[in-house]
Amino acid sequence: MAERMRAVVKVDESPGEAGTAVTDRALPEIGPDEVLLRVRATSICGSDRHIFHWDPPIRKTIQPPRVYGHEFCGEVAEVGRNASRPDLRPGDAASAEMHVTCGTCYLCRTGRGHVCARTKILGFHEDGCFAEYVKVPAGNVIRLDTAIAPLRVGAFLDALGNAVHTIEDERISGDRVAILGYGPIGAMAAALAHHLSAAEIYVLDVSDRALAQARAWAESKAATNVRVLSTSGEAAASALQEVLERTGGGVDLVLEMSGAESAINMGLKMLRHGGRMSLLGIPSRRELTLADYTHDLIFKGVTLNAIIGRRMFSTWHRMLSLLESGLDVGFVVTREFPSLDHFHEGMALFDSHEALKVVFYPDGKGSW
Amino acid sequence: MAERMRAVVKVDESPGEAGTAVTDRALPEIGPDEVLLRVRATSICGSDRHIFHWDPPIRKTIQPPRVYGHEFCGEVAEVGRNASRPDLRPGDAASAEMHVTCGTCYLCRTGRGHVCARTKILGFHEDGCFAEYVKVPAGNVIRLDTAIAPLRVGAFLDALGNAVHTIEDERISGDRVAILGYGPIGAMAAALAHHLSAAEIYVLDVSDRALAQARAWAESKAATNVRVLSTSGEAAASALQEVLERTGGGVDLVLEMSGAESAINMGLKMLRHGGRMSLLGIPSRRELTLADYTHDLIFKGVTLNAIIGRRMFSTWHRMLSLLESGLDVGFVVTREFPSLDHFHEGMALFDSHEALKVVFYPDGKGSW
Amino acid sequence: MAERMRAVVKVDESPGEAGTAVTDRALPEIGPDEVLLRVRATSICGSDRHIFHWDPPIRKTIQPPRVYGHEFCGEVAEVGRNASRPDLRPGDAASAEMHVTCGTCYLCRTGRGHVCARTKILGFHEDGCFAEYVKVPAGNVIRLDTAIAPLRVGAFLDALGNAVHTIEDERISGDRVAILGYGPIGAMAAALAHHLSAAEIYVLDVSDRALAQARAWAESKAATNVRVLSTSGEAAASALQEVLERTGGGVDLVLEMSGAESAINMGLKMLRHGGRMSLLGIPSRRELTLADYTHDLIFKGVTLNAIIGRRMFSTWHRMLSLLESGLDVGFVVTREFPSLDHFHEGMALFDSHEALKVVFYPDGKGSW
Amino acid sequence: MAERMRAVVKVDESPGEAGTAVTDRALPEIGPDEVLLRVRATSICGSDRHIFHWDPPIRKTIQPPRVYGHEFCGEVAEVGRNASRPDLRPGDAASAEMHVTCGTCYLCRTGRGHVCARTKILGFHEDGCFAEYVKVPAGNVIRLDTAIAPLRVGAFLDALGNAVHTIEDERISGDRVAILGYGPIGAMAAALAHHLSAAEIYVLDVSDRALAQARAWAESKAATNVRVLSTSGEAAASALQEVLERTGGGVDLVLEMSGAESAINMGLKMLRHGGRMSLLGIPSRRELTLADYTHDLIFKGVTLNAIIGRRMFSTWHRMLSLLESGLDVGFVVTREFPSLDHFHEGMALFDSHEALKVVFYPDGKGSW
Repeated sequence: MAERMRAVVKVDESPGEAGTAVTDRALPEIGPDEVLLRVRATSICGSDRHIFHWDPPIRKTIQPPRVYGHEFCGEVAEVGRNASRPDLRPGDAASAEMHVTCGTCYLCRTGRGHVCARTKILGFHEDGCFAEYVKVPAGNVIRLDTAIAPLRVGAFLDALGNAVHTIEDERISGDRVAILGYGPIGAMAAALAHHLSAAEIYVLDVSDRALAQARAWAESKAATNVRVLSTSGEAAASALQEVLERTGGGVDLVLEMSGAESAINMGLKMLRHGGRMSLLGIPSRRELTLADYTHDLIFKGVTLNAIIGRRMFSTWHRMLSLLESGLDVGFVVTREFPSLDHFHEGMALFDSHEALKVVFYPDGKGSW
Repeated sequence: MAERMRAVVKVDESPGEAGTAVTDRALPEIGPDEVLLRVRATSICGSDRHIFHWDPPIRKTIQPPRVYGHEFCGEVAEVGRNASRPDLRPGDAASAEMHVTCGTCYLCRTGRGHVCARTKILGFHEDGCFAEYVKVPAGNVIRLDTAIAPLRVGAFLDALGNAVHTIEDERISGDRVAILGYGPIGAMAAALAHHLSAAEIYVLDVSDRALAQARAWAESKAATNVRVLSTSGEAAASALQEVLERTGGGVDLVLEMSGAESAINMGLKMLRHGGRMSLLGIPSRRELTLADYTHDLIFKGVTLNAIIGRRMFSTWHRMLSLLESGLDVGFVVTREFPSLDHFHEGMALFDSHEALKVVFYPDGKGSW
Repeated sequence: MAERMRAVVKVDESPGEAGTAVTDRALPEIGPDEVLLRVRATSICGSDRHIFHWDPPIRKTIQPPRVYGHEFCGEVAEVGRNASRPDLRPGDAASAEMHVTCGTCYLCRTGRGHVCARTKILGFHEDGCFAEYVKVPAGNVIRLDTAIAPLRVGAFLDALGNAVHTIEDERISGDRVAILGYGPIGAMAAALAHHLSAAEIYVLDVSDRALAQARAWAESKAATNVRVLSTSGEAAASALQEVLERTGGGVDLVLEMSGAESAINMGLKMLRHGGRMSLLGIPSRRELTLADYTHDLIFKGVTLNAIIGRRMFSTWHRMLSLLESGLDVGFVVTREFPSLDHFHEGMALFDSHEALKVVFYPDGKGSW
Repeated sequence: MAERMRAVVKVDESPGEAGTAVTDRALPEIGPDEVLLRVRATSICGSDRHIFHWDPPIRKTIQPPRVYGHEFCGEVAEVGRNASRPDLRPGDAASAEMHVTCGTCYLCRTGRGHVCARTKILGFHEDGCFAEYVKVPAGNVIRLDTAIAPLRVGAFLDALGNAVHTIEDERISGDRVAILGYGPIGAMAAALAHHLSAAEIYVLDVSDRALAQARAWAESKAATNVRVLSTSGEAAASALQEVLERTGGGVDLVLEMSGAESAINMGLKMLRHGGRMSLLGIPSRRELTLADYTHDLIFKGVTLNAIIGRRMFSTWHRMLSLLESGLDVGFVVTREFPSLDHFHEGMALFDSHEALKVVFYPDGKGSW
């Protein structure tokens, strides 16, 4: 193993390219309960964009200099001498849950660590995976079966886990589903809804580029039960009208991926009485006004589920099983780069929404 | 049976006493699928107050002249010749679900009639139970076992059903629960939480009278795990603080009974990560602003359940079983009147919050 | 409408062909709450075979002469004048739930009519659908959208409902599933597990013909995650061994469709710790011996769900949605006949297991 | 800390008193991830009786010499230097989950460690708590709040956890419950059903002594909704008849605590259609014959849940919350001894069913 590695570092508080450097760093040294992983593929998440731009909400979670990145897969390089993971050997394909929970609070001790209030995130509070190597607590390592995932899909299992967690408590087969926002997670949610045999799928977005991507996906799958609708400006009212008419009163399930106040309110109106809505999107402002709380929530008797992270580790197991059963999400990767040195180029594409998902292969090899 | 009866009628659009008359009406004539019930006890609900005052939100659901009232119990007087209710005979003790559902929509056909979008409510769209007799569809009649309920409790089973429905999908035993708003339904929810062995119960209200009533109830039950806290003005912040400290991070379950925007936002802050909140209270305005959607909902991963009506008819069965198992909610009745002719007096007490629940006995007899 | 119709009648207690006649009958006359349906397609169920052979367990539920058959679809011919079904008009495509529940017991009143202890079954206690016309209570009619189902699939929606009900409370996507017995319902369960993205599907049967049919189906779907295994004689032990090895300790879910004591015991051994098993198959004997209750049930902490009928009517809605989302079960129909006069020929094929499902078109037309 | 301690040791394969010695042993030495606990109170479980008698089913899990015992509470004596338990300090009141799971299998990683197939049990595979000190893996320690439990209740939290786990997935408030077998866990289940407001509770047993104990408990609680019925010999049929008549068709939930084949079959007959049955009791033989599988299971559509251990660690949290909310199970302790030297005397009482639960205080102090 080399002693130095390439890494993408948030070097100081400057926003944009000036504040992020692709540079050399010492390899992380693992403690007795940690595992060192060689990063084979890593991808950019929306929150990395906030780090890159040094957006206000992200500032208090990061202290530069910091290696960022939290979506990746790779191989086990070294296992700490006290790690209780007899199932891990150097060379094993692996990914990792990058939320590190306290392990002792009520929620951690009762199987709900994904909502632990003391969670630390690698790539934010500690160094992340935009690097050739990353260290993680042994318990957070997810062993992979190389057979089940193309390498580029392995690059964003963390994000796929968000999408899977959004729907895993919901029955979806045979249901009518609306997806608000066709970014990377919205796109994966659409793929999941289709894979799990939703009866009807409505994809809504304000961006023409996103709508075109959604239509291209639906066509590639010959998915005749998918309708892609613009909610830009005046089109929003007719999109709502169309969904209500086609469903005879509203969809069973809304997956809110946009964080836009207008979308959240439209989602409530789009829901049938007694329907369910999963909330994943994060607004840019703290305050959010519900347009008609009494009629849209109370009188309809709806259920809202706010989604954060992924279950540790049942969502991971389920995600891997779904990939094994044929779930195809590789299409969200629209650009791949053979090294981290292309980071600024990749971030520019991601930032402008030209690419849904951008993947880097730190060792230059794009397959297992 | 007499041909005329006393009834409380919303006679025209005048607000207040001028628009409501206690007067003589012809007995209702039942159709082949209906049942006529003699009203033995009936009580005032918060929505009756809206009718009385002719508040804007209620106007489109009522066309005067209309007998109002929708909480009652009584006896079967006559069963329609085509009613499929072999279990009902004249003289049987009974109450009724006053939400009349369409029976043919997807929700009605799949056991979720309580959120049927075509629901008509007796006492609003058709004549209600502030009268000596009321007719209801045969399927809506709930047969009672006279042994299990004192007559005054029978007067508000509809409202008790709301309280039961608010918690019936929630585990409550061993949990920490906050109840926001100690009106009649909040008071019943507190009694339910105590009966079902919640570990800790926090009751919050802005009104000193309500807080005194809550404290009196807790003392009468020697309920040492109940804390009653004022959220009036400056006290709100310290109440929140106290709940967060005592619970080490928030309650498991919030029951929102107030409909106040400030309470809803406090409830979200009072909830532990991964907690659940039932929403029953109805605000006076359409718009409602969540103060910190990202931190209070998304990052905490909470679940919100909006509550409307009662399950048909599992909530009714459960409610009767809970009364059988010793649930005591009789304390919410703070005034009783021996006839409907005292309606205006009773409404004045209810309207000023001097009484939690006001009960009328149309035939002058206060027990079975 | 004609006054006479062809019908398959269990004429007396003679077993086999002698006791069943295809004959002329008067058209049923409907009551005010009933609907007359014209039968377009109907199919033979395993319990019809018991009627045909006059097997002991079936005798007390039938009093000859009786028209039997309880799986069908067709068109609304006449709606009773008191039927609360504004959604039904003559000519509408329709099927029906043939379990007629009491409507007044605790289970019926709380959304669990499918386990009503007073259920009467059309085709057993009253006349069924092996006829040109059948009458059913208005509430039991299921309106169909002709677009979603080929007519031959409509012929056995009742049986498909059993298969759907078997798995509807279970998560199945991403899970490993074993199906014990590849008769018509086992075949539909396999199709459902595949459609709903089970990770691995094991189909087990003792009959070479059934195994061949299962393999043909898996090949036709290019379903590489399906393994078909013989459990005949000595093969049973190695089949069990193979499932345990491939799954690393057992499947998540067993669907027991055979009713064989040996299969039920094998299913328990095939289940992982904490696994679930749905029991649908009906043994020929009353007594059934579990080989190792302590180790196979208790120490593994398993859950067993006994399945009867279909939910009224959520299973029906779900089934229709699943067909809409692309579920293909048409392959179970292996023989079709253009009139009921071929009944004895069809029963012979079904009885010898040469055909999985046999369908009759009473009016000679095999499509909508 | 002393270097030697008193302990109850299964010294060799001799059955009865000859094979168990109360003797001196070296204090356990803890590893870096372990915690040493001082035992303040410990109690005898039914499986300890099997060890004492050296019953065949228990033999392969134990290799003498072995300290047995797995129900206890005490204080933290020493925390391993690598233990991730910042919440534990010497002197803290504590108990422990004595099932030690592998931590790496699918079930452990997905929150279902209580059914881990590689579980090792302290007191069987490793030394247990019939001693002055016991060492356990740090993660297995449960911190207690001394305020919530009398010391004698702390002695059998493990067993209480079994009882809580038996009902924790079940709604019980307002339901009708039958408990088959009034041993220690049956007695605690009855207390739980009463605390959680079951509508009706039927306790059934064959032993007159057990029935007398059950009646004494019900009287002490003025629990008028508890009926205690003998199922000895001829009484069984009339007990079944009485339950069916009083409930109008069967109870909602059966808790099977006896392991007797006759009780399991009676439980199935006692269950209403669609009812649920939890199976905890362990039969003495491997084979168990269900008397009428078709009618008692399939046609009734029942659900059976086999129960093993307790959830790690949500059952523990719930149990402690229930004690906090007033659950009283102290009555099951019928004999207390001031040292382990009385072990043989205590075992004799427990073995003859004269005592429900026998508690030892190794340091001679019977309170915190």
